[in-house]
Amino acid sequence: MKEIMDVINTLFNRLNRNEGYELYDMSKWRGMPTDKVNEIIDHTQLKPFATREDIVKLCEEAKEHKMGAVCINPYFVPFAKEKLRDTRVKVATVIGFPLGATTLRAKVNEAKESVDNGADEVDMVMNIGALKAEEYEYVLDEIGAVVEVAPVVKVIIETCYLTWEEKIEACVISKLAGASFVKTSTGFGTAGATIEDVQLMRTVVGEEMGVKAAGGIHDLDTALKMINAGASRIGASAGVKIVEEMKRRI
Amino acid sequence: MKEIMDVINTLFNRLNRNEGYELYDMSKWRGMPTDKVNEIIDHTQLKPFATREDIVKLCEEAKEHKMGAVCINPYFVPFAKEKLRDTRVKVATVIGFPLGATTLRAKVNEAKESVDNGADEVDMVMNIGALKAEEYEYVLDEIGAVVEVAPVVKVIIETCYLTWEEKIEACVISKLAGASFVKTSTGFGTAGATIEDVQLMRTVVGEEMGVKAAGGIHDLDTALKMINAGASRIGASAGVKIVEEMKRRI
Repeated sequence: MKEIMDVINTLFNRLNRNEGYELYDMSKWRGMPTDKVNEIIDHTQLKPFATREDIVKLCEEAKEHKMGAVCINPYFVPFAKEKLRDTRVKVATVIGFPLGATTLRAKVNEAKESVDNGADEVDMVMNIGALKAEEYEYVLDEIGAVVEVAPVVKVIIETCYLTWEEKIEACVISKLAGASFVKTSTGFGTAGATIEDVQLMRTVVGEEMGVKAAGGIHDLDTALKMINAGASRIGASAGVKIVEEMKRRI
Repeated sequence: MKEIMDVINTLFNRLNRNEGYELYDMSKWRGMPTDKVNEIIDHTQLKPFATREDIVKLCEEAKEHKMGAVCINPYFVPFAKEKLRDTRVKVATVIGFPLGATTLRAKVNEAKESVDNGADEVDMVMNIGALKAEEYEYVLDEIGAVVEVAPVVKVIIETCYLTWEEKIEACVISKLAGASFVKTSTGFGTAGATIEDVQLMRTVVGEEMGVKAAGGIHDLDTALKMINAGASRIGASAGVKIVEEMKRRI
């Protein structure tokens, strides 16, 4: 815990911030009952070759299994919103995805248009190169600018490319910027969510912010491990398999 | 050749177009002398974790080896433009990259801002799902809308996800929309450029349009094979290695 606070204090010095920061005690984490896992799944289809037909299937599956949301590319947002009208399934889309290296303005425009098109939530990729170059103010401003135009913002920090220190910095900056969630991975990087990363992220952001584990979650056991490690949302293309395993088990 | 024309005629029927279309006779293709390969290299750095430091290095290498362009993410365009001031190295960036599944408006905004920021060329990813769903008018309109805001547009058709028919359709639509180039791959898909694809693309688009081979071109021999197959531009992160091999050989 002390080492984590050392990183945060160094970051705060760089940002000229003089405020307290409290880490979360993971022994207090209660996770979520197995029979509710479906409700926190973002049922995901982001393949570049996905067609409307694939999106219809995704929406029907999410509806049938009462999943929390579908997560799709911006092109399909109006279509998915229409398919999910009069259901409780939310529409999430991705911004600056999956490289995170477009401009601030492009991310804001894409988020704003997606929200206008019906997106309830946006999963934006942090500017990873800017974080690595210690352009902390820029990273903070960029997330803040997207937070201004979207009701729920999940910041994808793409853990596979970050050092331990950078993971902590990314979480703190996302929290300072007012994002609703930090998210481990795009699913397009060299690795997905790990137990250790989810624990670290939960410890840093505390109990009230969301932590989304995504990338490589192909079955219920992995999903449950992520939830026990601190995840409050699961991103997966294997949503149906996970929910069916859940139903067999309860 | 007949089979290619069959695909094109079917596409033209779908688009309600009634015009002639001429295929290019590859036996007329002259390629390019080995000692000029450097001039047609887009020296590429699109990694999500690239920093300004990496872009400085890329620009210096492109300058030193007299390469045609650097190809970078939109975030770095103003910085690279400044680094390459008073040189002949062009700045190319990527739009809707690498999934191609954002909205038309997001692609146009991103392209416009990039051009305002100093980009000479934009490599946009076609909406692959829309092509596959036979939403041809949409694909045509989207490329046309980007062509209106950028002086040089290369359409990345991402051959690894396309059938033979779809590759032909993608090339014809790009040409009809007024793009300057068709480009094989993002480098983020399941495969990069192949000789067969480059030949097919050149045959379909003719002599006057550009064909950019990208993805997996790691040495001079591969670059020369692509050029002989019809490529007029090479996208590679191994630009320095290719040019050094070229200098040793001539």
